[in-house]
Amino acid sequence: MIQGIGASAGIAIGKSFVLPNWEWDLPEQKIDVADLAREFERLYEGIRTSKSEIEQMKDELREVVGTEESYIFDAHLAILEDPVFMNEIQGIIQRQYKAAEVAVKEAIDHFVTMFDLLDDEYMKERALDIKDVGNRLLKHLLGAPEITLPSDTQPFILVAKELSPSQLAHLNPNHVLGIATMAGSTTSHSSIMARALGIPLVVGLESKLDDQIDQIQTGDTLIIDGTSGIVHLEPDDAVMAHYSELQRSQKEASLRLKGIASVRSVTQDGKEMELSANISSLKELDIALGSGTYGVGLFRTEFLYMDRHRLPKEEEQFEVYRSVAEKLGGKPLIIRTLDIGGDKHLDYFELPEEENPFLGYRAIRICLDKTDLFKTQLRAILRASAFGNVKIMYPLISSVEEVQSANALLEEAKRELASEGIAHRSDIEVGIMIELPAAVMIADMLAAEVDFFSIGTNDLIQFTLAVDRMNDKISHLYEPFHPAVLRMLKTTVDAAKRGGIHVGVCGELAGDLRALPIWLALDVDELSMSAHALLPIKERLICMKQQNSRRLFEELLSCRTSDAVKALLHDFGKLIERESRQPSSK
Amino acid sequence: MIQGIGASAGIAIGKSFVLPNWEWDLPEQKIDVADLAREFERLYEGIRTSKSEIEQMKDELREVVGTEESYIFDAHLAILEDPVFMNEIQGIIQRQYKAAEVAVKEAIDHFVTMFDLLDDEYMKERALDIKDVGNRLLKHLLGAPEITLPSDTQPFILVAKELSPSQLAHLNPNHVLGIATMAGSTTSHSSIMARALGIPLVVGLESKLDDQIDQIQTGDTLIIDGTSGIVHLEPDDAVMAHYSELQRSQKEASLRLKGIASVRSVTQDGKEMELSANISSLKELDIALGSGTYGVGLFRTEFLYMDRHRLPKEEEQFEVYRSVAEKLGGKPLIIRTLDIGGDKHLDYFELPEEENPFLGYRAIRICLDKTDLFKTQLRAILRASAFGNVKIMYPLISSVEEVQSANALLEEAKRELASEGIAHRSDIEVGIMIELPAAVMIADMLAAEVDFFSIGTNDLIQFTLAVDRMNDKISHLYEPFHPAVLRMLKTTVDAAKRGGIHVGVCGELAGDLRALPIWLALDVDELSMSAHALLPIKERLICMKQQNSRRLFEELLSCRTSDAVKALLHDFGKLIERESRQPSSK
Repeated sequence: MIQGIGASAGIAIGKSFVLPNWEWDLPEQKIDVADLAREFERLYEGIRTSKSEIEQMKDELREVVGTEESYIFDAHLAILEDPVFMNEIQGIIQRQYKAAEVAVKEAIDHFVTMFDLLDDEYMKERALDIKDVGNRLLKHLLGAPEITLPSDTQPFILVAKELSPSQLAHLNPNHVLGIATMAGSTTSHSSIMARALGIPLVVGLESKLDDQIDQIQTGDTLIIDGTSGIVHLEPDDAVMAHYSELQRSQKEASLRLKGIASVRSVTQDGKEMELSANISSLKELDIALGSGTYGVGLFRTEFLYMDRHRLPKEEEQFEVYRSVAEKLGGKPLIIRTLDIGGDKHLDYFELPEEENPFLGYRAIRICLDKTDLFKTQLRAILRASAFGNVKIMYPLISSVEEVQSANALLEEAKRELASEGIAHRSDIEVGIMIELPAAVMIADMLAAEVDFFSIGTNDLIQFTLAVDRMNDKISHLYEPFHPAVLRMLKTTVDAAKRGGIHVGVCGELAGDLRALPIWLALDVDELSMSAHALLPIKERLICMKQQNSRRLFEELLSCRTSDAVKALLHDFGKLIERESRQPSSK
Repeated sequence: MIQGIGASAGIAIGKSFVLPNWEWDLPEQKIDVADLAREFERLYEGIRTSKSEIEQMKDELREVVGTEESYIFDAHLAILEDPVFMNEIQGIIQRQYKAAEVAVKEAIDHFVTMFDLLDDEYMKERALDIKDVGNRLLKHLLGAPEITLPSDTQPFILVAKELSPSQLAHLNPNHVLGIATMAGSTTSHSSIMARALGIPLVVGLESKLDDQIDQIQTGDTLIIDGTSGIVHLEPDDAVMAHYSELQRSQKEASLRLKGIASVRSVTQDGKEMELSANISSLKELDIALGSGTYGVGLFRTEFLYMDRHRLPKEEEQFEVYRSVAEKLGGKPLIIRTLDIGGDKHLDYFELPEEENPFLGYRAIRICLDKTDLFKTQLRAILRASAFGNVKIMYPLISSVEEVQSANALLEEAKRELASEGIAHRSDIEVGIMIELPAAVMIADMLAAEVDFFSIGTNDLIQFTLAVDRMNDKISHLYEPFHPAVLRMLKTTVDAAKRGGIHVGVCGELAGDLRALPIWLALDVDELSMSAHALLPIKERLICMKQQNSRRLFEELLSCRTSDAVKALLHDFGKLIERESRQPSSK
C-alpha cells in the first residue's frame, strides 16, 4: 500500500500500464554555415505544426471537458510565440551552429533550470509548460512518433512519472480506468483536467517510492482510490474484495441519487429550498437539468471571453445566453457579468501584473472602467431576457456607488435597445454577489438597491480571514466554519430578509453537506452549487427539519472556535444519517 | 510650470544642477584564450570591491535614514551573488572571448531587456536594481571615477533622468535642496529614501517634457514643490514671491507646533487622548520624544530582523528592547511581535513565493509555525519588561485559537525565565492588532482573551474592501471613509469597551486629521501614529469637543456613500479651523 495524494475522486481496479519517458537521440555534429537558413526553415515548420496540433487538441478537448479546462493550452500557444524563448533558440542555432533540435533542447533546459532556480511556484508551472511545448516541438523536428497508449487491450490504470496536460488530452477515458503519477499536485493543470474527465487520479507518489517508478511494472494489478490517495500494488484477496465492494456501493449510491432527481426539495417540516446549479459551460447545464435543478443560480460568463482571441460580440453573447435561457424553459437563470482578473486572465485583454491579484483590478472594477465592454454584455443579457427567466448579477460589489454606477449603465443599455426597437425585459431583476466583508457590513444599504443577494462564500472567507486558499502554506487557515464567517452569513441574510429581497448562496459552501443546517437555520431561499452536488444535497435536505437546524444554529453562534463549530455540525450530521437509515423511528 | 508627481513633501528654491548620465567606452577587441583566467580574476575582484562598497554605503545610510530604508541595498548584494546573472557574465567571457566589462554590459542589457519584456512591475524594479549594481561593477572594471556632485558651490536642486538608490545614498542633504527626476514613481526605492532623508522630490516629469531633460540646464533657477508635484523653471517674480512666502509659512507652522509639545492632549470638554508614536528605529524614537509623545503605541520589531544575515539572538533583541524601554522612562512601550511576510522579507529566512502575499504566510502565522523563532523574541521582550512599561502585541490575529496558542508560548517563556532566575514581569500586558475583518466580527470574544486592542486600519481597510492600496490600478478604491469601515471601527471599539479593555488605533488613519472626530466619538483611548503627525494632531485635538464629534458621528453612520462621509468630515474640519482662528467667539 502506498499513500499518495488524492487528486480526482473515484476507485479504479485493474492492470497497470507504465508510460515510457520521452527521451530522444540528438544529432551531435555542428551544422554548416550554408545550412543555417535550412535549420531556421525546419524550426519554423516545427513551430507551425506544433501550433496547429495544439489548436486541434484544444478543440477536441473542449468537446469533452468544457471550455474552462481547455484554455490551459492557450498558455502553450503563447510559449510558441514568446520572443524570449524564440530568441534563445535562434541564438543557439545562429551563434553556435547547432541543429534546430539541439537548440530547442538546450533552450528548454536553460529556461527550466532558470525558472527552477527562481524558486517560485508560478515559474515552476511555467517551466512545466515550456517542457511540454518544447518536447512537442522536438518531436516534430526529430520526426519521432507520438507515444501512444494501447487501445486493443483491456482498459488499464496508467502509471507515469509525470503527466503533462497534452498527454492527458490524448487519453481515451474508455481505455483508462485511473491514473497514478510520481510527481504532481492537486492544483496542477493535469489534476484539473483529470477531474473534468472524471478519471480517478492519485499524485505525489515519489516521496514514498524513493522516485522508483520501477517498483510498478506494466501488467501489475493495482487499486487506486482518488479520494483517499491510497494505491494498492498487487493487493491480496481481502483488500481486493474490500475495494470491489466499495466501488460497487459507490455506483449503487449514484443510482439511488438519480432516483430523487424529480423529488421536491423540501424539509420534513415544509421548508422548500431552491437547489440550483453553478454552470460555466453548456455541458454542465445538461448535468444540472438531469439532476432536476431548480434553475441556474450562477452562470459564469467568463468562458465566453476566454476561448478566443478577441472580445465576444454582442450577437455572439446573445445567442449563448438565449440558448441557455430557452433550454431552461421558465426556470430562473442568473447571469453573472464578467468576472475576470484575480486568477482569471484573457489572452487578448492586457491586465496589469499585480502583487496581490485577489485584491486587485477584477470583475466589476474592470467593467466599470471599461464601460464599452460592460455595456455590450449588458445589452446581450437584456436581449436574452426576452427569451426566458433571466436575471443579472454583479460580482465583487463593495459599495452602494458601484451598484448605482452599474445600474446606470444598465438603464442606458435599456434605453438604447428601446430606441432600437429590440425586445428585452425592462424590469429584469438585478442582484449582487455578497463576497466582500464591506458588502456584508453594509448589506442593509445594498438590499435597498437590488432585487437579490447571492453570497459568494469562497471570496468572502478568503478576505475575512486574509487567507488565499490556493496557498498551500496557509490553506489550513481557510476555515469556512470560523465563528466570524457564521456571523457574516447571519448579518447578510438578516439584512436581505429585513429588506424583503431574495437571498441565495453560490459559493462552495452551498454544496457542502456539513453547512446545510446553517442555510436552513438562516432560512436562505436558494443554494446554488456544482451540478454534481445537487442530488447529494437534496438527499440530505429531505431528511431534515428546519426547526432542529435553528436550535443547532443558536449553539453554533455561541462557539468561540472553528473546532467547536465543526464538532457540533459533525454530531448533528451523524444524527441525521442515523435517523434517515431508520425511517420507522422518525 | 511643469506638473510632475510629488514624491517627497517640501518646497525647494534654488539653482539646478543637471546630473550627467553614466556612459562609458568599452574595449572592442576580443581577449586571448590565454587571458581568460585574468578576465575572471578581474571580474571577481570587481565583484568583491562592489560588494564592500555597497556594504559600506548601507552602513553609512543606516545612520542617516534608519534601518528600514537601508535594507534596499541587500537586494543589490543579492544580485552580485545571483547564480543566473553570474553564469550569464561568465558564459559570455568564456564562450565569446569578450572582456569582463563587455560581458557585464551585455549581461545587464540582456536581463534588463528580458525583464522589461515580461511587463511585470516587480521585474521592472529588479531590472533597475540590476542596472544599478551592474553599472557599479562596470565602473570598477573600467576604473572610472564615481560621478560626484559639486560640494563647493551653493546648495542646489538636483535634476536627473533617473536616480538610483545608490546615487541618492551618496547625496549630502546639506548640499541638495531638492530633486527632480524625469522617470520614477512615488513608490520606488529612491522615493522612499528621499522621504526618509527629508529631501523634497518631484518625479515623473518626462511625459510633460517629452523626455527632453535638456529643457533644464545646470544653473537654471528652479522651484519644486514636493507636495503638489509642481516644478517652476525660471519663475517670474510673482511666483517666486508666492513660493518664498509658502516656504516661510511652512517653517513658521513647524515652529508653532514645536510650542505645544509639552501641552496635555485633551479636548475642550475634557476627553484626554493618549497620542503615541509608531516607531521602527531609534531615530524615530528621538523625534517622538521631542514631540512629547505619550508613549510608543507600536514598536515594529522587523528592523531587528532585516538588517543582517541571520536571526537576531535573544540577547541582541533584549538589549534593543531594554534601551527603548529605558529611554521611554515609565511611558508605555507596546512591542509588536515579528510582522514579516506580505511585502516584508528577510534575506536569510526563506519565505514561499506567493500569488497573493497579503493573503499569505505572514506575521503571527509564521511565528506560530516557527515557534523557536517566536519564543526567542518573547523571551527578549519579557526580559526587557523588567526595565520599563513594556506590553506585547500580536499582529494579524484572526481567531481566539491563535491568541491562545501565542499565549501558551508566552507562558512557556515565562516559566523558562522563572526557572532560570531571570528578571521579567510575569503580569505583562498582552494585546492584539485588530486588522482582519474576522477579528472585528469576533471582537467580543477576543476582548475576553487580551488586555488591549490596537486597530490596524491599513490592513483592515485593504481586506474589508479587497483592495491592495499599493496597486495603482485600483488604489482609488482604497477608501478609509467607507461606511463599512466606520461600522467595523464602531463594532471593534464597542466590543473593547464592553469587555473593559484599552483600545487604540495604530494604522495611518490615527494620524489623519480628518478622522479625528471619529476617534473622539468612539471614545478610543489611544492614537498611535508617525512621530511627524503627533503635533499636528494634538494642535487640532485641543481645539475640539468630544460631544460635537459624537453628534457628527451619528450623522456619519447614516451615510450611504464614502463621498457623503467625507463631505461631512470636511465641513466639520473647516468649522473647527475657523473656530480655532477666532478664539474669542468660542
